[in-house]
Amino acid sequence: MTRSLVRVLVISVAATALHAAADEGMWLPNRLPTKQLKEKYGFEPSAEWVEHVQRSCVRFGSGGSGSIVSADGLVMTNHHVGSDDLEKLSTPQRDLLKTGFLAKTRAEELKCADLELNCLWSIEDVTERVNAGVKSGTSAADAWQERLKAIAQIEKESQDKTGLKSQVVTLYLGGRYHLYRYRRYTDVRLVFAPEQQIAFFGGDTDNFEYPRFNLDCCFFRIYENDKPLKSEHYLKWNPAGAKEGDLVFIVGHPARTQRAVTAEHAGFLRDGFYTGRLEALWRREVQLMSYGARSSEWERQSHGDLFGVQNSRKAITGIVTALQDPRFIQRKADEHRKLRDAVDAKPEWASKWGSAWDEVAAAEATYGRLYDRFSLFEARGGGVLSYSDMMRGARTLVRLAEEKSKPNDERLEGFRETDLESLYLQLYSPAPIYEDFEIDRLASGISLAVERLGGNDPTVVKLLAGRAPRELAEQAVRGTKLKEVAERRRLAEGGTAAIAASTDPMIALARLIEPEARAVREKYMDEVEGPERQAYGKIAAARFAIYGEDQYPDATFTLRFSYGAIRGYSENGRNVPAFTDMAGLYARWSERGKTGAFELPQRWIDGRSKLRTDQPFNFVCTADIIGGNSGSPTVDREGRIVGLVFDGNIQSLAWDVGFTEEQGRSVCVDARAMIESFRTIYDAGPLADELLGR
Amino acid sequence: MTRSLVRVLVISVAATALHAAADEGMWLPNRLPTKQLKEKYGFEPSAEWVEHVQRSCVRFGSGGSGSIVSADGLVMTNHHVGSDDLEKLSTPQRDLLKTGFLAKTRAEELKCADLELNCLWSIEDVTERVNAGVKSGTSAADAWQERLKAIAQIEKESQDKTGLKSQVVTLYLGGRYHLYRYRRYTDVRLVFAPEQQIAFFGGDTDNFEYPRFNLDCCFFRIYENDKPLKSEHYLKWNPAGAKEGDLVFIVGHPARTQRAVTAEHAGFLRDGFYTGRLEALWRREVQLMSYGARSSEWERQSHGDLFGVQNSRKAITGIVTALQDPRFIQRKADEHRKLRDAVDAKPEWASKWGSAWDEVAAAEATYGRLYDRFSLFEARGGGVLSYSDMMRGARTLVRLAEEKSKPNDERLEGFRETDLESLYLQLYSPAPIYEDFEIDRLASGISLAVERLGGNDPTVVKLLAGRAPRELAEQAVRGTKLKEVAERRRLAEGGTAAIAASTDPMIALARLIEPEARAVREKYMDEVEGPERQAYGKIAAARFAIYGEDQYPDATFTLRFSYGAIRGYSENGRNVPAFTDMAGLYARWSERGKTGAFELPQRWIDGRSKLRTDQPFNFVCTADIIGGNSGSPTVDREGRIVGLVFDGNIQSLAWDVGFTEEQGRSVCVDARAMIESFRTIYDAGPLADELLGR
Repeated sequence: MTRSLVRVLVISVAATALHAAADEGMWLPNRLPTKQLKEKYGFEPSAEWVEHVQRSCVRFGSGGSGSIVSADGLVMTNHHVGSDDLEKLSTPQRDLLKTGFLAKTRAEELKCADLELNCLWSIEDVTERVNAGVKSGTSAADAWQERLKAIAQIEKESQDKTGLKSQVVTLYLGGRYHLYRYRRYTDVRLVFAPEQQIAFFGGDTDNFEYPRFNLDCCFFRIYENDKPLKSEHYLKWNPAGAKEGDLVFIVGHPARTQRAVTAEHAGFLRDGFYTGRLEALWRREVQLMSYGARSSEWERQSHGDLFGVQNSRKAITGIVTALQDPRFIQRKADEHRKLRDAVDAKPEWASKWGSAWDEVAAAEATYGRLYDRFSLFEARGGGVLSYSDMMRGARTLVRLAEEKSKPNDERLEGFRETDLESLYLQLYSPAPIYEDFEIDRLASGISLAVERLGGNDPTVVKLLAGRAPRELAEQAVRGTKLKEVAERRRLAEGGTAAIAASTDPMIALARLIEPEARAVREKYMDEVEGPERQAYGKIAAARFAIYGEDQYPDATFTLRFSYGAIRGYSENGRNVPAFTDMAGLYARWSERGKTGAFELPQRWIDGRSKLRTDQPFNFVCTADIIGGNSGSPTVDREGRIVGLVFDGNIQSLAWDVGFTEEQGRSVCVDARAMIESFRTIYDAGPLADELLGR
Repeated sequence: MTRSLVRVLVISVAATALHAAADEGMWLPNRLPTKQLKEKYGFEPSAEWVEHVQRSCVRFGSGGSGSIVSADGLVMTNHHVGSDDLEKLSTPQRDLLKTGFLAKTRAEELKCADLELNCLWSIEDVTERVNAGVKSGTSAADAWQERLKAIAQIEKESQDKTGLKSQVVTLYLGGRYHLYRYRRYTDVRLVFAPEQQIAFFGGDTDNFEYPRFNLDCCFFRIYENDKPLKSEHYLKWNPAGAKEGDLVFIVGHPARTQRAVTAEHAGFLRDGFYTGRLEALWRREVQLMSYGARSSEWERQSHGDLFGVQNSRKAITGIVTALQDPRFIQRKADEHRKLRDAVDAKPEWASKWGSAWDEVAAAEATYGRLYDRFSLFEARGGGVLSYSDMMRGARTLVRLAEEKSKPNDERLEGFRETDLESLYLQLYSPAPIYEDFEIDRLASGISLAVERLGGNDPTVVKLLAGRAPRELAEQAVRGTKLKEVAERRRLAEGGTAAIAASTDPMIALARLIEPEARAVREKYMDEVEGPERQAYGKIAAARFAIYGEDQYPDATFTLRFSYGAIRGYSENGRNVPAFTDMAGLYARWSERGKTGAFELPQRWIDGRSKLRTDQPFNFVCTADIIGGNSGSPTVDREGRIVGLVFDGNIQSLAWDVGFTEEQGRSVCVDARAMIESFRTIYDAGPLADELLGR
C-alpha cells in the first residue's frame, strides 16, 4: 500500500461523465466517442482505421490481449500473458521462465499445448431478437431463460452460416445484446520470450507500481495449415515511438469492470464478493509460498499459480481500498439517486423502470446468501475445488455428458455446439500434470469448503465421507486415470453411460459435487443473474433516455478502444515522469541489492554497456484499462505500435469501480525498448527486422 | 504440509488415557504422575527435586519459558523467545537479529526495555474459598462474577502479605482454583544471542519440521539492585548430554491446550475459532510480506511480527488439519458419550452434572455469534485493532482510568492492584516505535473490522466517520503524542479526567471503541466464559469421581512438568533418528542452495572445520509440550540441563487438541551443541565456563 491511496478518490461514473475532460471509457468498436476525440484531440478515426485496428487484435483464450504485428502472423503480447504457455512448454530440465526463449528459425518455434486466439471479425446488434421471445408478465427468471435460448439459437445459426466462432455479448449489464463473430486460431507457436526476471523485474513488490522497468513482452506466431498466417490485417511498428502528450489508443479485451452498479450492489462488492475473494487469495498465497519453498522443482510447478494469486490479490486490494472509503459509496448513492429521481419524475418511466434499484438490491441480498456455496462449487468454471486441473477436467466431463444429451438451446452456457471446439482444446490438452501439486491444490479446495461451510455441513460430510481433506485429495489424485488424454477422450465420447459406469475416484468426486453445483447455479441464475440483468436493462434504458446513447458499457472481455495521452502525474508532491529509461533500470537494480525479485538476468548485466542509458523503457498514459487488457497494443493516430500495455499503476486499481485520471495510469513497454533489447541483448535481429517490416 | 499429516490421528483424551503407556501430560508441580514415572521409568522424584527444578524455572512476560542456569542469575531461553527484546534493543544501525550479540563483560550486558520474568515460588489450593461465595440457585453469569471477586480478594491479600506476585489459576477448565505466588524480576539484561540465521536456520520452511539444525538459544541475566541475582536455585549443566532412550523432563509454561473440550466445543474450534484466526493470519502474513518487501529497514521493523504470524499460522494449520479429520471429532464424541452415560447412570450425578454438556454447547453457540466482534475489539488484549502498539497503549490508558476508579475486587482482570506493576512496565516501555509500521498495523486492523462487519455496521460507520481506513490510521498515528513515554504517564496518572479531556486522536479512537469492547466483553463473560467454567467444573467433577484424581489439567501458561524419552520415529516408512549433527547442518545448507532462509552466518562458514562433524546438534523426545514451552529446559533425572526445547515437529501440532506419541515429538537444542559452538564459533568461552560452573 502506498500513502497516495489514501487520497480522496474523485471517481466519476460512466453515465454522468460524458462531457468531462477525462480520457474515460472502454468504447465499443462500433460506437467510438468520435465527438470527444475530435474536440479534445482533433482526431477523427475513419471506419477503415477502426476495422483495420480491430482485425489486427486478438484475444487470448487463457486470458489477456494481443495483436498481430507482422505480415507473417507474428503476435505480440505480455510475458505474463504468455507465461501460462511458457510453463506448459517447460519441464524440470527446461525452465523457459528462467532462461527465456528465442526461435532462431521458424522450425524452432514451439507449438503451444492448448492456446486459442480469437480475432473479432464482425459485430451485429441482436438486442431485439434476444428480447423478442420474452412475453410481458414473465418472471425475471423465466425471461432470462428465454433470452438464453434465443442467444443459443442466434450463436448456432451464425456459426453454421459463417463458420466463424459466434458469441452474443450482454452489454450495459443487460441493456444491449451484440453478436460477435471471431476468427479462431489454435495452432500458435512460441517465437520469443525474455527471462521472467526482466519481464517481471521487481516482482510482486513493484507490480502495479510506477516507475517501472519491465520488458514484459512475448511473441507467438499464428499458423494455419502448418504455415505462418498471411495476415490480411496487422499493426505496423513506429520505430520513432511516441512522446509526452501524444494521443494513443489501447485496443484490447478488458475483462470486467463494475462501474454502473448501484450503491447497494457496490456495498456487496465491498462486504461480500471482494472480501470473500481476498480471503481465498490471502490463504492460497500463503499456501503456495509454503509449497514452493519445499524445493526448487515445486517452486517451478507452483510459480504460475503464485503469480496469478499475487496479481489478483494486489488488484483486488486496490479495489477494496477504494470501496472501503465511505465517500465512494456515498457518491455512487448520490449519482443513482439523481438518476432515480429523474425516472420517478415521469410516470411512464417510473412504471417501466422505477423498480429496478430495489430489484438489484434484492438480487444482491440473495447473492450474499448463496455466495459461499456458489464460489466453492460453481463460480469461475468450477469453484475453488477446481484449483486442481484434474478436478476441473473431471467436472467438465461429468457436466458435458449430461449437457450433450440435451437440445442445443437448452444447454448450459459453455456446453453449446458453438462452445465445444474450445472446450475440447482445453479438455484434451497434453500440458504436463504434477501429482504432488495437484494434491496440494485439491486438498486446499476441499479444506476451504470445510472452513467456509463447517465440518457438519451435509455436503461437506458427504464429500469427506469420513476422510481428512488431504487424504481424500491424495486418493483422488493418485488413483485417477485422467492424467492420460486418451482416458479423458474415452469418457467424453462415452457420454452419460461412460460417466455413470466410471470408477475413477476423480470422476466419482465430480459426480458427487455435480448436483450441489447445479442446484446453486440454478438458484443463482433464477434469483441473481436473471433479475439483475433485467433490472440493469431498465437502468440502462433510463440512462439512454436521459443521457443519450453516447456511453460505453462495463467491460465484458470483448474488444474495446480506450484513448488517452502519454502523461506523468504528481504523487505526494513529487513529479512522476511519463517515461523511464535504461539508466533507471540499473539504478533500481543497485538500490534493491540486485537480489530476489530485483536480480537481473546475466545477459542484462553483460550487455549493460551496449544499451543507451537514455533509451526509453516504460511509459504511462491516461487511457482507461483493466485486467484482461494485458498485452494490448498501444497505437498512435496512424494505428502504428508505440507500446505494449502490461500494467496499471496502483491508483488505477480503483478503475474497476470508477475511473479517475488524476493519478491513475496505464503502464506500457516502449516499442523502442523492445527493438533495442532484441538487437543488443538477445541477438534477435531478425525478430526486430520482422517487426519493422524490413 | 507433509504427507504424514494425512495419517489417521490416534489421539487419546487426557481423562481416559491414564494408564496408557504414552508419555502424555503437562503435570502440575504439586501433582506429578509418580506412579507412571516409577512404573515406566523407575524414577521417583523427591519433593526437594521438584521444588528445586520448579524454582529454577522462569516465565517470560512476553510469552515463553526459561530457566536459571548459573549461580549468577544467568537465564537460558530460545532465541525466538528473546527476539522480541533483541528487536527492541535494535536500531536501523544496529540489527541484533542479524549480527547476534555477545557481552564480553557484565558492563556490556544490555538492559531490556520491558521484560518481566516470573519464578513460581509456591502453590496453594483455594478452590473452596473461590466457590464459597456462590449460593445455590445463582445464575452461571452471577456465579462467575462472585468467583472473580473472590479471586481478586485472594490475590490482593496474598500479595500484600507475602510481597510475591499472586495469581489464582483456573485449572481443569473450572474444576480447581490454585493460588500461584511468583518472584518477579524486571531488571533483565541481554548476555548472548547468536545470529537469527543460525537460530532459525531453514526459516518458515523448516519450522515445525524435523530433522532440524538450529542454535535457537539466547541468554539473559537477572539483576537485583543493579547486581547479578545470587540464585538460590539454578539448573546445573550436564556436559555429557543425554542419549537415545534416556528419560528427560521438560519444565515450562505451556500456554494453552484444549484437550478436555466436548465434541461440540471442538466443532466450534474447527469451524469458527481457529478458522477465524487462520483467516486473520493468512491476511496479515501477506500484508507483512508486502510491507517488508518495500525496503530493508521496513523488513527489519516488521520481521518480528512476520515471524510470529507465520509461526502461529503453521501451528494452527496443524491443529485445523487434525480437527478437519471427521474421525477426530467422532472419537471425542464417543469419549464424552461414555463419560456422560456414566453420569446419567447415577441419579445423584445426573442431577448435579448431567446438564453440563448442553451448557457447553449453548455457550459455544453464543461464542460463535459473538466471535467477530469479540476478536475485533476485545480478545487477546484489545482485538486486532491493537496490532498497533500505540493503539494498544491508548486502549490500556482509557480502560485503566475507568478501572482504577473502582474498588479493587470489582475491576476487570488485568487492572487489579496485583496486576498494575506489570501493566506499567509495558505501558511505559521505552521500546522504539516506527510510524510507518504503526500506520500499516492500525490500517490493517481497521480494514479487518470493515471486512468482517461490513461497511454499514454502525460501529464501523462511527469508527470511520467518513474516512478511509488508512486515512484514519495515518491521522491517528501521525497526530498522537503517545509516542512519548511522558505523555502516557501523564494520562495514566491523570485518570478519567485526563482521558476525557484528551484531544489526542489515538485516545479519541480508543474512547470510541471502549463501549463496544466492554459490551462484547460483558456478553462474553456472562454468556460464554461464566457458563462454560461452571459446566466444565461439573465435567471435571464427574471425571474425578469416575477416573480418580490422577489427571493433568489443560495448559494455562503456568508451570508444568512433562516427561518422556529421547526417541526417533518412523515417517513414510523412513526412520527419523532422534539426533541430528553438525554434518547434517552443512549438508542441508548445500542441498538448499545456501540462500534465503538457508543462508549461514559467515562465522559458521569460517568455523566449519573447527566443529566436530558428529557433534550432536538437535534431538527429539516424547515429552508433551505446546506453544509457551519454547525455551523450557530439558533436564535429566538429576535435574541437569541436557537440552533446550525450541519446537515440536509437525505431527505434534495436533497436541493442542489431543496427545499422540506415534510420531509427535518435542524438538530440543542439544546442550553440548551450545557449549561447542560458544567455544569454537563465538569466542564465548567465559559463557561456556559459567554454564559448566567452572
